[in-house]
Amino acid sequence: MATKDLLLSYLKEKRGAWVSGESLSNEMSVSRTAIWKHVRKLKEEGYLIKSSPKKGYLLSRDSDLLLPNEIRERLSTRVFGKMDIHYFKELDSTNMKAKNLAEGGAREGTVVIAESQTAGRGRRGREWFSSSSGNGIYATLILRPAMSPIGAPRITLMTAVAVAEALLSLVELDVKIKWPNDILIKGRKLAGILTEITTEMDAVNYILVGLGLNVNTPSESFPKEIREKATSIFIETGAQFSRTRLIRTCLEQFEKYYEMFKENEFSSIIHRWKQLSDIVGKNISVGVIGQEHMGEVVDIDDDGVLILKDDQGRIQRIISGDVTLC
Amino acid sequence: MATKDLLLSYLKEKRGAWVSGESLSNEMSVSRTAIWKHVRKLKEEGYLIKSSPKKGYLLSRDSDLLLPNEIRERLSTRVFGKMDIHYFKELDSTNMKAKNLAEGGAREGTVVIAESQTAGRGRRGREWFSSSSGNGIYATLILRPAMSPIGAPRITLMTAVAVAEALLSLVELDVKIKWPNDILIKGRKLAGILTEITTEMDAVNYILVGLGLNVNTPSESFPKEIREKATSIFIETGAQFSRTRLIRTCLEQFEKYYEMFKENEFSSIIHRWKQLSDIVGKNISVGVIGQEHMGEVVDIDDDGVLILKDDQGRIQRIISGDVTLC
Repeated sequence: MATKDLLLSYLKEKRGAWVSGESLSNEMSVSRTAIWKHVRKLKEEGYLIKSSPKKGYLLSRDSDLLLPNEIRERLSTRVFGKMDIHYFKELDSTNMKAKNLAEGGAREGTVVIAESQTAGRGRRGREWFSSSSGNGIYATLILRPAMSPIGAPRITLMTAVAVAEALLSLVELDVKIKWPNDILIKGRKLAGILTEITTEMDAVNYILVGLGLNVNTPSESFPKEIREKATSIFIETGAQFSRTRLIRTCLEQFEKYYEMFKENEFSSIIHRWKQLSDIVGKNISVGVIGQEHMGEVVDIDDDGVLILKDDQGRIQRIISGDVTLC
Repeated sequence: MATKDLLLSYLKEKRGAWVSGESLSNEMSVSRTAIWKHVRKLKEEGYLIKSSPKKGYLLSRDSDLLLPNEIRERLSTRVFGKMDIHYFKELDSTNMKAKNLAEGGAREGTVVIAESQTAGRGRRGREWFSSSSGNGIYATLILRPAMSPIGAPRITLMTAVAVAEALLSLVELDVKIKWPNDILIKGRKLAGILTEITTEMDAVNYILVGLGLNVNTPSESFPKEIREKATSIFIETGAQFSRTRLIRTCLEQFEKYYEMFKENEFSSIIHRWKQLSDIVGKNISVGVIGQEHMGEVVDIDDDGVLILKDDQGRIQRIISGDVTLC
C-alpha cells in the first residue's frame, strides 16, 4: 500500500479521534515530516483532517470527491468499478474518454469518472449541462457483452431501470423514467443516460453507458434556460447527498440488471421499466424530427419501441423522439 | 488552382508531347525555376515526367499513387469521394483514422485512403495483411445514414455486392462473395470488408466501411502463412491494374448500392448477393467460437443470417462464423 493510503487507513481506523504524529511516524516507519506531507495531499483530495501541534491529526470527514479508493471501499460488485476506475477532475466528456480507452482495449467493467465536464453530451449530439464544482456524477461504463448487435440498444432501458432503482433505494423521491433515457422527479430531469454502441456486422465490439446525474447542484447553478426543467437531489430534499455512496449503489444496481440482461431476463426488466415509467395509458405528444405525433401510449415493446394509438385508433411505432405529456 | 495542379493540367492536356519550359512559364506567369520545382514535386508524387533542356517537359504516365485529385478526376459519384478524401502514405489503419475523423464530425462521403497500413485490422480484431509498397487499396468510407441501428449490419452485405460488381465490371475474373464479408477468387481472398457501426440507442451515429483489396501484390509479398489463401488481381491476371481506376469504380458502385439500400431496396441487393456468393445449396462447415456446425446452406435471410440445415433436417441460424466448403 502506498504511504498515503496507509496513512489514510490509520486515520480512518481512529476516525473522529486524535492520532499523534509521533505514533503514526513510528507505526509507519516514516519521518514526521513525511506524515505531514501526506496529510497535506489528503487534504488536497478533499479529506477534512484537523491538525494540532500537540494532539496530532484527526480525520473529521472523508473526501467528498469521487475518489476511486473511496468508491471501491464498500463496493459489492464483482466487475464494474472493481478494477479500473479512471478518475479525472475535469474531462471534455466521460463518454469520449471511455471511447478512447475502449478503442485501446479497455476491459468490461472499466469506469471513467469526472468531477466536471467541459463538453458533456446528451443524445444526438445535444449538450448536457455539467456543474463545474463537482456537484454531479458524470461517469461512463465500458461493456463488452458477447452478443449480436440486435439486442444491444436495450442496454439504455436496462440502465434507466438500474439508476432509478439505485435512487429509490437511497432517497425518498418520486423517481420516474421518461422514455427513452431520462430520469425525472416531478417532471424535471435529474439524470440522463447516453448509450453508445460500437459493433461490427455480427458482434458487439463495446458499449459505452454514460450517466449524468445532478446530485448536489443548487438551482442557481443551472443555466437559466434549463432551470425550470432540471433538478437535483439537493433541490428536491434540501440536503447534500454523498455522491460516492450514490455512484456505488448505481454500479451495484447496474451490475445486477446487466447480469439479468445477459441471462435473457429482459422481459422482467421491461416489466419493471413500465412500472417505473408510468407512461403506458398516458396521452402524449412525441416530436419526431419535423413531425408531432399525438396519442395514447398502448405499450413499450421489448425493443423499447413506443406503441402509440392516435384518436382514430391507428397504431404507430415510435423508435425515437421527445415526449411531452398532454 | 494551385500552381502545381495548374502545371499538371497543362501537361495532361499535351500528354505524350513535349511542352517547353518557356511556354509553360509564359502561360502560367511564373518563372522557369518555379516550373522546374513543381515538376520535381509532381515526380515525387509518382508522375513520370521526362525533361530535356531543349524540349522541355513530357508527361509520359500519371502517378500510380492513389492521389485524391486523380481519383476525383473522372469520378461520377455525387457524394463519396467528391468532397473529402484524406490521403496518407502510411496509417496504422484507415478504419482507426476514419473513426477519429467521424468522432470529430466528418460528414458522409468522407474517404480515408492509405498506401499502406501498419496495423490493418480484420473482423474481430484479427490482423489484416497490408502490402507496404502501395500495391493494395486500403480505404474507409464514412456513412451517416438517418436510420435505426437495426438494419445497419446489412451494410456489410451491401458493400460486398458493390465491391464484387466493381471488380466484375473491370476484370474478367470469377469473383465470389464469401459469407459474410470476403471477396474471393477461386477460393482465395482478394478483398475483405470491415464494417464498424457506432449507434446510440435509437439512431445510427456513423458507420465505417473499411476495404482492403489486393491489387498489384505479387505472391512473394504475402507472408508465408497466408500465401496459399490470398490472391491479388496481379496474381490472377499477370498484369498490373490501375488502383485509381479500381477505387473510383468501387466508390461509384458503392454509392449506387447505398442509394438502393437507403431506398429500402434491400431485397434486390440480397438477391444479387446470393447470385454472387454461390453458397446457397452448398454443404459447408461453419466454425462458431468453440463449435463446428455442418450442413447445407438453405438460405441467407435479409439480415444476412445463414440458414443451415443439418443431416437430420434441423435448421440452424448462424449469425457469424468462419465458413469452409465441404
